[in-house]
Amino acid sequence: MPDGRNDERGPADLLITGATVLLHDAAGEIRFADDQRIVVHGDTITAIEASDGSTPAAVEVIDARGKLAMPGFINCHTHSPMVMFRGVAEDVPDDRWFNEFIWPMEVNLTEEDVEVATWLAVAEMIRSGVTTFADHYFDIDAIARVVDASGLRAVLGSTYFSTDGAAGIQQSLERALDHRGAAGGRITTALAPHATYTVSDEDLAATAAAAHEYGLLVHVHASESRTQTRHSLERLGYTPIEALRRAGLLDTQTLIAHGVGIVPEDLPALSAADRVGVGSAPKGYLKHGQDTTPIRLLAAAGVPVGLATDGAASNNTLDVWESMTYLTLVTKAVERDPTFMPARTALRHATTESAAALGLTGTIGRLAPGHQADLVLVDLRAPRLQPIHDLANTLVYSGRSDDIDTTIVAGRVLMRDKRVLTVDVGAIIDDLASRLARLTDRSHGTSIQSYDA
Amino acid sequence: MPDGRNDERGPADLLITGATVLLHDAAGEIRFADDQRIVVHGDTITAIEASDGSTPAAVEVIDARGKLAMPGFINCHTHSPMVMFRGVAEDVPDDRWFNEFIWPMEVNLTEEDVEVATWLAVAEMIRSGVTTFADHYFDIDAIARVVDASGLRAVLGSTYFSTDGAAGIQQSLERALDHRGAAGGRITTALAPHATYTVSDEDLAATAAAAHEYGLLVHVHASESRTQTRHSLERLGYTPIEALRRAGLLDTQTLIAHGVGIVPEDLPALSAADRVGVGSAPKGYLKHGQDTTPIRLLAAAGVPVGLATDGAASNNTLDVWESMTYLTLVTKAVERDPTFMPARTALRHATTESAAALGLTGTIGRLAPGHQADLVLVDLRAPRLQPIHDLANTLVYSGRSDDIDTTIVAGRVLMRDKRVLTVDVGAIIDDLASRLARLTDRSHGTSIQSYDA
Repeated sequence: MPDGRNDERGPADLLITGATVLLHDAAGEIRFADDQRIVVHGDTITAIEASDGSTPAAVEVIDARGKLAMPGFINCHTHSPMVMFRGVAEDVPDDRWFNEFIWPMEVNLTEEDVEVATWLAVAEMIRSGVTTFADHYFDIDAIARVVDASGLRAVLGSTYFSTDGAAGIQQSLERALDHRGAAGGRITTALAPHATYTVSDEDLAATAAAAHEYGLLVHVHASESRTQTRHSLERLGYTPIEALRRAGLLDTQTLIAHGVGIVPEDLPALSAADRVGVGSAPKGYLKHGQDTTPIRLLAAAGVPVGLATDGAASNNTLDVWESMTYLTLVTKAVERDPTFMPARTALRHATTESAAALGLTGTIGRLAPGHQADLVLVDLRAPRLQPIHDLANTLVYSGRSDDIDTTIVAGRVLMRDKRVLTVDVGAIIDDLASRLARLTDRSHGTSIQSYDA
Repeated sequence: MPDGRNDERGPADLLITGATVLLHDAAGEIRFADDQRIVVHGDTITAIEASDGSTPAAVEVIDARGKLAMPGFINCHTHSPMVMFRGVAEDVPDDRWFNEFIWPMEVNLTEEDVEVATWLAVAEMIRSGVTTFADHYFDIDAIARVVDASGLRAVLGSTYFSTDGAAGIQQSLERALDHRGAAGGRITTALAPHATYTVSDEDLAATAAAAHEYGLLVHVHASESRTQTRHSLERLGYTPIEALRRAGLLDTQTLIAHGVGIVPEDLPALSAADRVGVGSAPKGYLKHGQDTTPIRLLAAAGVPVGLATDGAASNNTLDVWESMTYLTLVTKAVERDPTFMPARTALRHATTESAAALGLTGTIGRLAPGHQADLVLVDLRAPRLQPIHDLANTLVYSGRSDDIDTTIVAGRVLMRDKRVLTVDVGAIIDDLASRLARLTDRSHGTSIQSYDA
């Protein structure tokens, strides 16, 4: 392991001193080490070591005494520009949410709208300690520009429906290849078929073939609710997960959004898949009066479950720390078992399982030499975090993203002292406000799709 | 209605200008009025009126442009000093939580421990916009001192068990009479029998008689879980609510903590009671793998359901805004009905229903002339709150107490620009930390009670 004090790479670009650090042991279990320093060269962590009282030479030094350094949060499934529709359609069932509000409004979007909204989303994510987000949306050229300029890391997929014809999958593939590796490697990409109920079996199979050929992740909504699974069984005779299997999508790196409708009969197919993950966004499931992702079942199948927020039109925030707490509490309630999903397991979902769900194990999700320097600092002196009997419990049950004061991606500080450095938040809020009347207009009577799943 | 510009009482003590204000109409429904000023004389709101461009004379003026003024949050059931045990016993069932952790640890408490811990609790509550809390604990003389000095409002009850003998109810009554009206009227008091399963039917009846005689609120844990209700039916042949009815406690102003185990057969007794309320703390119910307070049933009985946090050893925070969001989302999920508990109903629970549950209708829970000036200012420019399509939705589904920057109780500013003015938080954290080893010691092998409910 390189030594920060006398590194062949020369002085560190970033040095964080005096921090308590959330680490993973060889078995992946969470542990905490006090009074550590984290050495960063370029975008990469080169050492994490106990303080020896000295402060090695570094371009930038952050004093993190009284703070916890932990991996930045990973948002495994979102539609970041949908912050524009945050709170526009509440207290309605999901079919009305789609058909009467969201899909008619999405007809109105221009690429510029998407860009402005993404800036707001990015500000919110940096503010809440999200360092990577997996996006599934339209106009990803605009989204990629914002990711590049804001300093965040993203996994971008361009949404398509089979109603788009051959052009749909084609543009999703072209954009995935165009943007792959952009923003200094901070952008990776995915093929993004919308869902098993809006993309034909043929198109899903073509997606799997392209994913194999180009080594791309596939990011797809599937088995979003038990109702969907029941309808699929009634109409087709098989589950949405079986539809993915038949298409070949369980043999590739596939990220399933939600998976709430996954049932025990899906277990053999999921157990046989070794590069499939699920992104779970439990706050929205509660709000829509639905079930939640079956964590116990997926754990039995060895499927990593990452944390997600879905779009803010469903989840109302893009705050993954919040998702972590909801996932933990809701899972205990659904299982009627307070011993299930202890705090350290929740932190594993937030870190290594989220990275695995995106196919980014070894790159993000851990603080360790060789990993990207994507991390947040949590100020542990807030009244709600005190006293600290067990830091894992403090984080999962008491803490929230507002306790984060510093966000770092690829070694670059994006938020310091709770101030977001790369976004002019006020200007973005005003710009977006001027667009709202047009964005929410439904008088045109059209819709981008019809929901019947 | 007095006019702030030319009031016979003279210049206002506090004037808040340019605020959007959360108001209740004659039917109790929530509405918002923009660009208002709030005039306060002493501890009382004397006017809320549209701005006319002028700034009337006032001792203190707060510019609240871009902010929402809303009633301060009311914590209808907590054990504030239990912040000392926050996170000490997680991922365990409730019987083990009581018998192996909390009750053996509570043997260790001194009055000074309670006082120090209450200071931390008070800092957290001021920080999160709680302006009134209903406490049920030991050593309330210490708690009353902290309430007095910190500026908060509280409803204090001194816990007793029937195992304390006659001295138990006696000290609870004496303290209720001693502290009633203290802290310039900010302290009201309650009789505080622990629960239907730890206080005998005779002692509950004596409590009801004392409540009648002295005009005191009764604050009691009852029907905390469906398991408790089932055990009560098995052992006694009636429910915990029926135990309260037989004791006469449904004919007084009674505050029931939790009520999770309230069942349809309790409905006639509850419908006949017109001064009974329930405090609900849903985050802890999820964490313990339990059901939640049956809001639909209680609404049918006309019983106000206020928001609560329980102690931080269960709920991990004392943040009532958080309770509001959990109550809303969990109720939708349990009812499997996303249209139930819309955002404005949730805000009613946070305001007028919480006040009613404490018997404080007309005093707190609304911003209106003649009410106490207990309010918070919410900064609406945080990225997670934008854009605002509907402010009620924004507050309930996106916002959180961290968006509050000002907390005012009885006309006194307790937090300004997110800085708590009446508590030395750092000193309290350090003092409490020095006590933890002793407080969590369980080697003595004793316990204050045994849980078998």
